[in-house]
Amino acid sequence: MLPHEVMQQARDEFLNWQNQGVSILEISHRSKPFLALAAQTEQLLRELLAIPQNYQVLFLPGGATYQFALLPLNLLGAKTTADYVDTGIWSQKALKEAQRYCQVNIVASARSSNYTAIPPLADWKINPHAAYLHYTANETIAGLEFPWVPEVGDVPLVSDMSSNILSQPLDIKKFAVIYAATQKNLGASGLTVVIIREELLGKALAFTPTLANYQVQAENKSLYNSPPMYAWYLTNLVLHWTKKQGGVRAMLEHAARKASKLYAVIDNSQLYANKIKSEYRSRMNITFNLTRPELEPLFLQQAEQQGLLGLKGHRLAGGIRVGNYNAISQQSIDALIAFMQEFERDSRIKNR
Amino acid sequence: MLPHEVMQQARDEFLNWQNQGVSILEISHRSKPFLALAAQTEQLLRELLAIPQNYQVLFLPGGATYQFALLPLNLLGAKTTADYVDTGIWSQKALKEAQRYCQVNIVASARSSNYTAIPPLADWKINPHAAYLHYTANETIAGLEFPWVPEVGDVPLVSDMSSNILSQPLDIKKFAVIYAATQKNLGASGLTVVIIREELLGKALAFTPTLANYQVQAENKSLYNSPPMYAWYLTNLVLHWTKKQGGVRAMLEHAARKASKLYAVIDNSQLYANKIKSEYRSRMNITFNLTRPELEPLFLQQAEQQGLLGLKGHRLAGGIRVGNYNAISQQSIDALIAFMQEFERDSRIKNR
Repeated sequence: MLPHEVMQQARDEFLNWQNQGVSILEISHRSKPFLALAAQTEQLLRELLAIPQNYQVLFLPGGATYQFALLPLNLLGAKTTADYVDTGIWSQKALKEAQRYCQVNIVASARSSNYTAIPPLADWKINPHAAYLHYTANETIAGLEFPWVPEVGDVPLVSDMSSNILSQPLDIKKFAVIYAATQKNLGASGLTVVIIREELLGKALAFTPTLANYQVQAENKSLYNSPPMYAWYLTNLVLHWTKKQGGVRAMLEHAARKASKLYAVIDNSQLYANKIKSEYRSRMNITFNLTRPELEPLFLQQAEQQGLLGLKGHRLAGGIRVGNYNAISQQSIDALIAFMQEFERDSRIKNR
Repeated sequence: MLPHEVMQQARDEFLNWQNQGVSILEISHRSKPFLALAAQTEQLLRELLAIPQNYQVLFLPGGATYQFALLPLNLLGAKTTADYVDTGIWSQKALKEAQRYCQVNIVASARSSNYTAIPPLADWKINPHAAYLHYTANETIAGLEFPWVPEVGDVPLVSDMSSNILSQPLDIKKFAVIYAATQKNLGASGLTVVIIREELLGKALAFTPTLANYQVQAENKSLYNSPPMYAWYLTNLVLHWTKKQGGVRAMLEHAARKASKLYAVIDNSQLYANKIKSEYRSRMNITFNLTRPELEPLFLQQAEQQGLLGLKGHRLAGGIRVGNYNAISQQSIDALIAFMQEFERDSRIKNR
């Protein structure tokens, strides 16, 4: 979902952007209005996340999965190992791609808790010679989120924040690289933002495609060739909207308010159950199963009839999954809660 | 420019696509409606270009420049050389990127004609052991277009058709790979179509990023990860529009009619001059200089005042450049011609 105000504005100026008489879809990426939009987009993100000057902000085509290869290609340099934390399906995908380029050291895995908890930092087996340490800040499929930023000493810290960027303030200085696809809290699909400490640029392996080289993209302000302009434009609108809502502090409260209300309903119910340990529950993806699994198809069907769409869990996990991204309003969550409670009452009556 | 009807439809269904109650920007790329759109988009392109069954059609994020690396990565296999034809700036960019992965044999260069003619096929020094032979079907900056498809024997033929795809019927069987960014005749920026003969899949070099591997993308119908959905949607609308106009035969006539009229005005003028040899003049990018170069800024300024935008030549070439893509109407070209003739009359009066 994109914020309603963003969609409205995008529709209203679809044929005539900034009174130019043409659509943003029809101007050149080298035209002054687009260059201004690109610069403003970067500036807004810098402002919202308080990104220090010694970080570059890249806007790259493709999704976060593409970065799974670009990270080792750009960050390994002369090193041959990288550290990865395994907290679920996305971190596993990331580390599998990295294994094609280097030796991957799995410093910690949530497997022992059946992916219901983040492994305690004290147990992590960090390799001080690793080129970098990678973790997935929020696992969307199980709904497992880091409640803290790992302190990993001198190893450059890399985080996939595709699904929870802009949902909280961040101390950017702690990170070497933060990357995030835009289709959750940053806009629509087609673009990935990479925030990278400057000193890490310039180490790309020899066979890295020119456009996959972070340094080349940084030097060219991500405009080496035709970029996905419309995705960039939507990100610009979403950043304006986020700022207007009060920025990342407001988003933190907004997410917490919605998530805690929904988790409370789940926890107080006989029918709904979430298995993630409470402190690691995702604020962005709230998953649950029905204690009577045979009712899940009916739950999804009736939800859809009430306009509650997209609740089916990921095909790899099943169950129910609620996207609680920034654009999701309190009203939407309240409507879902009302439906859940009614469904539970009905199921009890029928079960007598 | 996108066709007016396409823009109108995209605007009208921006908030409510196919009566789903949501925007196409807000649905999952794994949802049935999007999968249907993707399949239909491929089918429309197959139909318009009569693509045989033994070819795969990929829809990849990023522009054509990204393919400059993906071609050698995917096509070299055990071979170490590739043939490239140098006809201008885009073919040079393509071959420079290929030089990072293999030995590039420049089989022919338009340099001897100062890039005003395609080198005659009889003079090409084709290496029968080359992994493939690459040419740029239309050079947008100078406005130089191949009027024929080169016959290169058994060497797999690869063509960048970013700027003239869908402007003429093609005998696809002659090609190993055709690739085209979508922002000219196929939609907006953010996507590149790759049409590849199946037998060429499966040869990617070991260090190719998974998402840059044509075989992986083919096996996953280009849906390995979140694709640039909106660009894909716009391509779908443009393909529908192209079909409604009468397909590539109609586009061939449309382009020829507009281009020949404009070139005739240039050739019959004292003020405008195009230096490309007539048989190699691009139908898509019509370039010219003013014989009194000091008038070019005034020409551009007055054109803009009349709503004739985007006529400034590429920064590497200067002069005037007219985009004559499929979406450009006869009326637009006629309006330009009227302006050009008036400007020339005025300049003569002032010059007396």
